[in-house]
Amino acid sequence: LNIAVLAGDGIGPEIMQQAIKVVNVVCEKKGHEVKYTEAVTGAAAIDAVGDPYPDSTHKICMEADAVLFGAIGHPRFDNDPTAKVRPEQGLLRMRKQLGLYANIRPVETFPSLLHKSPLRKDLVEGADFICIRELTGGIYFGDKGRSDNGNTAYDTCVYTREEIERILKLGFEYAMKRNKKLTVVDKANVLETSRLWRQTAQEIAKQYPEVDTQYMFVDNAAMQLIQWPKNFDVMVTENMFGDILTDEASVITGSLGLLPSASIGLHTSVFEPIHGSYPQAAGKDIANPIAMVLSAALMFEYAFNLKEEAEMIRKAVAASLEQNYVTEDIDKTNPKKTSEVGSWLAD
Amino acid sequence: LNIAVLAGDGIGPEIMQQAIKVVNVVCEKKGHEVKYTEAVTGAAAIDAVGDPYPDSTHKICMEADAVLFGAIGHPRFDNDPTAKVRPEQGLLRMRKQLGLYANIRPVETFPSLLHKSPLRKDLVEGADFICIRELTGGIYFGDKGRSDNGNTAYDTCVYTREEIERILKLGFEYAMKRNKKLTVVDKANVLETSRLWRQTAQEIAKQYPEVDTQYMFVDNAAMQLIQWPKNFDVMVTENMFGDILTDEASVITGSLGLLPSASIGLHTSVFEPIHGSYPQAAGKDIANPIAMVLSAALMFEYAFNLKEEAEMIRKAVAASLEQNYVTEDIDKTNPKKTSEVGSWLAD
Ligand SMILES: CC(C)[C@H](C(=O)O)[C@@H](O)C(=O)O
Ligand SMILES: CC(C)[C@H](C(=O)O)[C@@H](O)C(=O)O
Repeated sequence: LNIAVLAGDGIGPEIMQQAIKVVNVVCEKKGHEVKYTEAVTGAAAIDAVGDPYPDSTHKICMEADAVLFGAIGHPRFDNDPTAKVRPEQGLLRMRKQLGLYANIRPVETFPSLLHKSPLRKDLVEGADFICIRELTGGIYFGDKGRSDNGNTAYDTCVYTREEIERILKLGFEYAMKRNKKLTVVDKANVLETSRLWRQTAQEIAKQYPEVDTQYMFVDNAAMQLIQWPKNFDVMVTENMFGDILTDEASVITGSLGLLPSASIGLHTSVFEPIHGSYPQAAGKDIANPIAMVLSAALMFEYAFNLKEEAEMIRKAVAASLEQNYVTEDIDKTNPKKTSEVGSWLAD
Repeated sequence: LNIAVLAGDGIGPEIMQQAIKVVNVVCEKKGHEVKYTEAVTGAAAIDAVGDPYPDSTHKICMEADAVLFGAIGHPRFDNDPTAKVRPEQGLLRMRKQLGLYANIRPVETFPSLLHKSPLRKDLVEGADFICIRELTGGIYFGDKGRSDNGNTAYDTCVYTREEIERILKLGFEYAMKRNKKLTVVDKANVLETSRLWRQTAQEIAKQYPEVDTQYMFVDNAAMQLIQWPKNFDVMVTENMFGDILTDEASVITGSLGLLPSASIGLHTSVFEPIHGSYPQAAGKDIANPIAMVLSAALMFEYAFNLKEEAEMIRKAVAASLEQNYVTEDIDKTNPKKTSEVGSWLAD
């Protein structure tokens, strides 16, 4: 197993170490040979080589069987929207160059974390769905610029039928493996791109007669997610709506620090936690490594098709939560360190 | 007071009747002469004259001092994204032609409705903020279309500095009258239009040194709204983000059926409930008229600068909630009819 390791910024490096501890023992147990190749990205890469996703890093990703990704972002860029070189550019370039067309986020509740949910327990308990976000198209990658001496700005949202078909098919396949319910989120009453999404979905839906396909406007979806999270099974949407809705979805369970994600690529796939680089905690050995560790579980499952290995990791995580061997975000009174939780999970 | 009355579709006409009962008694008490001019809009106008916002309706709005608007939309259009004439087009055309550049939604909690909030009571109790959404620019009104035999679709998001300045100034003015905290929501790490928003906000902020101005990415805002709704005072954002976030904001309080909105216009301003046309309830005399009645209160305050009149209406609404003289969405066991609540409020 040839894994590219892009730890990135903030807490990235320290949570990555824990994931690697865990991957190592799983591979040892199961007799897999594993090779890690580290590469720079994000603000760290800007500092090192002036580019948040240098060609050398891309080459390492292309040659790997999977990419483990920590987090990127640094506060010094946040209030300078016009900075020429920014960590996010690296992320976007990585998505485009690796063809990471689908970001998959399983949203699950953990019984021991339900009290951290901002929602009423009865509404959220047992919620279990998957958000699939298109990741290489839409307004993120369309033509953008200024005119009128910089006083007019524009962004273009573009989608082709192929891009839409590819991700919708993934959505229908997931729905078939789960509870056969697909919610396609768009704004077809206003946007032309959304109308193409809805048309395409209506066509593909015919090939999946068993799937209960629903169409929902994005503003309504933002409400339904909070009011009836248990009504969702698989949700598919375009890039910008997905950015907003998947983040909304990830906080309703109270388990943001625990949620992993997979970005399925045409070349190599990338596995990363949903949470960000959390700069305030960087270097303090206090960040929760579980989302990163569960991202490694997703890697075993999706990139290597090794389901038992993924299950081993998930069981370890479940045990640490049950026994309350957790970092300070979950247990303020008797917290363990990032590195302690990592070692415990590996043990 | 010359009021244009656009009742629209679904429950629009029956809730509008209640608002008019209330406006009538307020005007009688306070010695204002009031004149109503009815005009068609929405699906009702498509049926009547083939246009959801006909010129005759526009003329009536332009000549009025304020517009009371019910709701538009009909299910027969929902699953036909390619229908040539759609109720929403009327709404969008009205916004553009009346220059309704700012949609203002006060988000308030009502003690008697807190149990209907999907959020934990401690998080939402006392939440009180205002969302200001830009309403005549952005991706809603930019160039859109198809190419490649209909297999590629595009939408364009455009903003000019003037459009951004106009709405941001409104935001700062509201913040000055409230708790002096303004949250500007954008996606400046990805979008060029957002970078123009942020630059412009940073410039205008200098004129309001007393206001604590915060910048928040839209994905983060979608999370913060649920996790810490009490942290917001005034939020300003562009059209599409505003569509999503204001709907999200309106459900966290449990009082969606009670929230009014004002759309400030260059010509005439429009006052309407946040909720939609609720076709399932149309004609049944069961819909909650409060949001429509409170929209009339906003009209007195914003369009006529008659604050006492607005206060009279708000007091009546508060009393009906306290005494539980309410429709079935609030009290299932002993519900009153739409018309009963309207008459009670007027009395
Ligand atoms: C950092 C930013 C460019 C990125 C995005 O908007 O896609 C992030 O919010 C995410 O969701 O991964
Ligand atoms: C009906 C639709 C076009 C409209 C919008 O997106 O603006 C609605 O959702 C709203 O928020 O008023």
